[in-house]
Amino acid sequence: MKRKIRMGMVGGGPGSFIGAVHRMAANLDGQIELVCGCFSSSPAKSLETGRSLFLPEDRIYATYQEMMEREAALPEGERMDFVSIVTPNDMHFAPAMLALEKGFDVAMDKPMTYSLDEANQLRDKVKESGRLLLLTHTYTGYPMVKEARERVRRGDLGKIRLVYVEYPQGWLYTDCSATNKQAAWRVDPKRSGKAGCMGDIGTHAFNLAEYITGLRTEALCGELHTFVPDRLLDDDGAALLRYEGGARGVLMASQVAISQENSLSIRVYGEKGGLEWHQEEPNTLLMLWPDRQPEVIRTGGAGLSACATANTRTPAGHPEGYLEAFANLYRHFAATLQARLAGEEPRPEDLDFPSVEEGVRGMQFIEAIVSTNSSNQKWILLTD
Amino acid sequence: MKRKIRMGMVGGGPGSFIGAVHRMAANLDGQIELVCGCFSSSPAKSLETGRSLFLPEDRIYATYQEMMEREAALPEGERMDFVSIVTPNDMHFAPAMLALEKGFDVAMDKPMTYSLDEANQLRDKVKESGRLLLLTHTYTGYPMVKEARERVRRGDLGKIRLVYVEYPQGWLYTDCSATNKQAAWRVDPKRSGKAGCMGDIGTHAFNLAEYITGLRTEALCGELHTFVPDRLLDDDGAALLRYEGGARGVLMASQVAISQENSLSIRVYGEKGGLEWHQEEPNTLLMLWPDRQPEVIRTGGAGLSACATANTRTPAGHPEGYLEAFANLYRHFAATLQARLAGEEPRPEDLDFPSVEEGVRGMQFIEAIVSTNSSNQKWILLTD
Amino acid sequence: MKRKIRMGMVGGGPGSFIGAVHRMAANLDGQIELVCGCFSSSPAKSLETGRSLFLPEDRIYATYQEMMEREAALPEGERMDFVSIVTPNDMHFAPAMLALEKGFDVAMDKPMTYSLDEANQLRDKVKESGRLLLLTHTYTGYPMVKEARERVRRGDLGKIRLVYVEYPQGWLYTDCSATNKQAAWRVDPKRSGKAGCMGDIGTHAFNLAEYITGLRTEALCGELHTFVPDRLLDDDGAALLRYEGGARGVLMASQVAISQENSLSIRVYGEKGGLEWHQEEPNTLLMLWPDRQPEVIRTGGAGLSACATANTRTPAGHPEGYLEAFANLYRHFAATLQARLAGEEPRPEDLDFPSVEEGVRGMQFIEAIVSTNSSNQKWILLTD
Amino acid sequence: MKRKIRMGMVGGGPGSFIGAVHRMAANLDGQIELVCGCFSSSPAKSLETGRSLFLPEDRIYATYQEMMEREAALPEGERMDFVSIVTPNDMHFAPAMLALEKGFDVAMDKPMTYSLDEANQLRDKVKESGRLLLLTHTYTGYPMVKEARERVRRGDLGKIRLVYVEYPQGWLYTDCSATNKQAAWRVDPKRSGKAGCMGDIGTHAFNLAEYITGLRTEALCGELHTFVPDRLLDDDGAALLRYEGGARGVLMASQVAISQENSLSIRVYGEKGGLEWHQEEPNTLLMLWPDRQPEVIRTGGAGLSACATANTRTPAGHPEGYLEAFANLYRHFAATLQARLAGEEPRPEDLDFPSVEEGVRGMQFIEAIVSTNSSNQKWILLTD
Repeated sequence: MKRKIRMGMVGGGPGSFIGAVHRMAANLDGQIELVCGCFSSSPAKSLETGRSLFLPEDRIYATYQEMMEREAALPEGERMDFVSIVTPNDMHFAPAMLALEKGFDVAMDKPMTYSLDEANQLRDKVKESGRLLLLTHTYTGYPMVKEARERVRRGDLGKIRLVYVEYPQGWLYTDCSATNKQAAWRVDPKRSGKAGCMGDIGTHAFNLAEYITGLRTEALCGELHTFVPDRLLDDDGAALLRYEGGARGVLMASQVAISQENSLSIRVYGEKGGLEWHQEEPNTLLMLWPDRQPEVIRTGGAGLSACATANTRTPAGHPEGYLEAFANLYRHFAATLQARLAGEEPRPEDLDFPSVEEGVRGMQFIEAIVSTNSSNQKWILLTD
Repeated sequence: MKRKIRMGMVGGGPGSFIGAVHRMAANLDGQIELVCGCFSSSPAKSLETGRSLFLPEDRIYATYQEMMEREAALPEGERMDFVSIVTPNDMHFAPAMLALEKGFDVAMDKPMTYSLDEANQLRDKVKESGRLLLLTHTYTGYPMVKEARERVRRGDLGKIRLVYVEYPQGWLYTDCSATNKQAAWRVDPKRSGKAGCMGDIGTHAFNLAEYITGLRTEALCGELHTFVPDRLLDDDGAALLRYEGGARGVLMASQVAISQENSLSIRVYGEKGGLEWHQEEPNTLLMLWPDRQPEVIRTGGAGLSACATANTRTPAGHPEGYLEAFANLYRHFAATLQARLAGEEPRPEDLDFPSVEEGVRGMQFIEAIVSTNSSNQKWILLTD
Repeated sequence: MKRKIRMGMVGGGPGSFIGAVHRMAANLDGQIELVCGCFSSSPAKSLETGRSLFLPEDRIYATYQEMMEREAALPEGERMDFVSIVTPNDMHFAPAMLALEKGFDVAMDKPMTYSLDEANQLRDKVKESGRLLLLTHTYTGYPMVKEARERVRRGDLGKIRLVYVEYPQGWLYTDCSATNKQAAWRVDPKRSGKAGCMGDIGTHAFNLAEYITGLRTEALCGELHTFVPDRLLDDDGAALLRYEGGARGVLMASQVAISQENSLSIRVYGEKGGLEWHQEEPNTLLMLWPDRQPEVIRTGGAGLSACATANTRTPAGHPEGYLEAFANLYRHFAATLQARLAGEEPRPEDLDFPSVEEGVRGMQFIEAIVSTNSSNQKWILLTD
Repeated sequence: MKRKIRMGMVGGGPGSFIGAVHRMAANLDGQIELVCGCFSSSPAKSLETGRSLFLPEDRIYATYQEMMEREAALPEGERMDFVSIVTPNDMHFAPAMLALEKGFDVAMDKPMTYSLDEANQLRDKVKESGRLLLLTHTYTGYPMVKEARERVRRGDLGKIRLVYVEYPQGWLYTDCSATNKQAAWRVDPKRSGKAGCMGDIGTHAFNLAEYITGLRTEALCGELHTFVPDRLLDDDGAALLRYEGGARGVLMASQVAISQENSLSIRVYGEKGGLEWHQEEPNTLLMLWPDRQPEVIRTGGAGLSACATANTRTPAGHPEGYLEAFANLYRHFAATLQARLAGEEPRPEDLDFPSVEEGVRGMQFIEAIVSTNSSNQKWILLTD
């Protein structure tokens, strides 16, 4: 008999934002059950969180090392199948490496690691271990983002010329690190890495553009800014982009664009057509044509690709949101794990989730954008 | 130790739309687990669905009567706590009555029953049994709908004058009952009841207006239409409304408004302010003032009521949708059941879910709108 | 040599809103010149206004009777060709009748007259005199309204089923008649006529729906309200409509829908497609289809009808507004007058302006909506 | 007695787009009359156009030199007061210089000249002659643009941090220069100047940002592209901007962003608030705040600045568009000329039109953006 996929969690204790999101996303489709966790570096807080999640106490751990150790010792069908890592950036690498060593698959938040060097090591470890890695670039889970990629892929837009991608936020427009736990670690270079805004959300914008266009960024020329006094990392930035094949792009990301929430958007223009998508109204995709009227594509609407449809849960007119997009990543990841349990090949559509390559790519982007900022040279190459 | 609330399901087998929605809504917050079900009138289909949901075979039942009987015989902590009824309208009443008799709480889809008479009986039974009933008028679960109600309640709009509420859909613009299982029962008076469009979605519009304004409809004057040839129930209609206290309203509902998805919207104007909300962009509430600029209220934004905030899962800018609204109903219902398990009083905010009174109200609306249609008299009273 | 068409004006003095609008609309295309006027019942104010418009003093008149008399005595090529009547409703009929008698063509604001009886007389006089009458139902001058009508006419929507038309305003949400000259006469039954809101803006909504659909309204069932205490005319109302051929409609108009400006909109659904248009964003027309994506039609965009194009002055992306729509009426009226001067047949597209028939129709609507309001009978016929 | 201001025109013959726009803008308010013109380099075409505009033949000229000469010889009150120059860029300088020499004021289209050198000469000539120059940067004429500037000026946004300004068009996405007269000269470096897209519309974006923020651009780093094969000038480009005082900006302009019309938009974020404005829906200005809800400012709405109100012709809800914005420039220019005729000081609000300084600034921008494109140096200074 088939069973649910079993998830453990590292991080996601009191005050965590993204931990709860990962749990809801994993819950939604009834394919995954949370069986254990180490939710905080404080054992008491870990216990408190685990209990509130109805976990038995012997599956609530004080350290992630203990968790990996003891779960690995449990029999198949009881032990967790994979671990979700939802800690700040500096605590991604070590638990991920240990999990892979112990034979667990890994889901983890972005950016993948603290540094490019860690990212490269993790890529090697994934290859070596043969385990799966899910990197939660959430926005690629939206049906209309998948539709956009399909439309580009099948040539509706012709050769791509222009990409405008932006992610303005405003919540860090002033210094709130003393009172806001989410802010505190994001503006701390010891926990966040070399980049602040660009690491946190610039990587999302970068990833979205490469995902939809299928083009690799070759070089960039940009500038980072720190508008809030005494902040140690960038809270704003922009870059001109050069894509393979000659397309040009502009990427903007900010955490001081006052009142902006998660206003991620992308516009792509090709030789034959264009498209627009905005994360805050995610169920609409605008298709643009030179010689006929724009089309308003809607989640669940007529004439969508198989891929968009497979990532939609309800008929048109029932808005799907961020959690559904997130859940799409987990659903595909779980389906791939189920296929392995059943000794079957995973379906290609289930392999459509961001993984370690996208993670390395994001870290390359961070390296390049930090490098261009301090350089008088106009263009910086993104290197593999 | 606290445990999850245990759910059984009647209906929701292959081809069901709303069954899967109920399950996802119940899953999302990790407070409820599905433990049993009778998913179809066909035992084989029930078994197929139950297996796909990872249920043990001895908790997958062939009839709802068998399910009620056998679950009632299980020990507390093992048996289901409540049953979700997600069948067509003609199959709401009997399983609900039996569940209440056997001591189970009930969640069920709307309209509550096939007839007003059944609705009144069910109301009596709920009172007599002391059990809880959740009626899934989904749209009242949206944070911005709750915000709208709060703003009306605290007097921001002053005395209400005008209510425009509408629910245009287009999916039944032609006869698709032979090929579309969802359409088939909705246009069949034997399964759906006296009204088609008005029963299916007019009741949502009616409920939303009474929920937000807190006003009861006293009388209506309307007309129903059946545009598609040979259809036996209305597929369109409109009514003028008179609310207690002198407010006036207009309600429109249609299933032939071609290409409209679930374009439910409401506009309310009072002596001091107004508001607008559209279901398809549910994270925005527009507040309107005579002497200053409109405000764009956003889910998770600044200055929201405690009630809206308590019904929001993610920070501003992460769009929440239909499933989250639906899950809010289940979450409050589950919290109320948890309080009972713990021997505590439920929190007032958790009692904020539609129940049997709203169900009776909806059936009164159906009676009145069907009555006005065939009457030459201008106004028909809604009677309790 | 061709010359500009010469316009005189009755009304439009200090504090007038619509007089200045008529003058700007007549100016825009350089086809019409203002040559004389009687701008106020106060000769001093008339003189003041005339001077500010650069008119010679001997063409600024103290009474409209004097103006008609003396202009009629001037030689052709010097005297005015037509008169614009921009006074309150009770002062439409007399100057219009006199102008026609003296051989002048007439442009006038809506509703056409104070009463249906006057409207019928004016219709007879127009026929008898052979002069032209332009009734400024402005909204039919928008390119996208013309496009909508074309699309209906050529069958894109199939047989029309449903019409939702509404005109919510909020400026009369409280009693402002003491301080607002525009409000004062509109809420005064002696100057405005039998209906307030319905006469002022309900007639626009009614006209727009008949213009776009090409369908005549056969019967209506509605209610009027007066929300502001001591107001003598309706400030709000709604009606169910029955169109010839079986289409159904709903018309709402309000002047107490707080903060609404001129939120006129129309939605039409047929057997094969639908459309939506909103006056406040007038350069967009949404076309709706059952089996393909909505199209966003834009003023000046690809694939528009000849009629829409002929009513557009600038390429796509240069928003045209209310004054341009208004000017389209004057432009066609002037072109028709030019054709007559040249002894030519006017072009059919230039005859596309609202005239005396639409004026009579509007007065019939006012009669019917006032009648339904005080009747217990459900349906009131609109009679010719 | 006051009289209308008298306008002559250079350019604007058959096939011209902007000539007709200038004439409608000048007509709208009835303050200006066209009295003469040289509408084409072809005398026959000039005559044809002049006749269609009802001009007497002796005021229709074969060359602009003849026009300046003969008009200068006419008595005051008969001769033109100013000349509008609406030719391609290479034909701006010579007629403007001659007009100034002959004592005429000048209105002219942008970019002001063919080269920066010409611009500097023209600036000197304007100063020397004491005549007025109106440069038609249309978009600064919109009421909501003026409101935006006022809000920045009075400190509502606090110190400006970020400016995103963009002007995507799509009409040149393919080579249409053989069939489209408007395209032909714009892509021809002999007629257009050093820059294509950036000269034609990049200058508008640049001007709008400086106008609203009141900040001068100090340096830029950008890239131009030519996507359409064999095109000699840029059809796309983007630049990072550094403003005085530390603000940062991004400017994008494109004529190959397929299906985009005139999608000029600007977003400005400061330490205390932000704003957004889009040219294609010009009657809305969004004000953004960190701690309260966004406000939707509407043309004619409550609480607007005197400046916005003075640039609005109709009450709220009557959309004003491109021609009204254009007419605002002419209206202020005419009022300034009237003041001079009357020997009065012009009102400060009437001096609010773009002039020769903005024209020089635009040419400096073109120089810098062309320079950055071919440079490996990251930042290029804008020099006065």
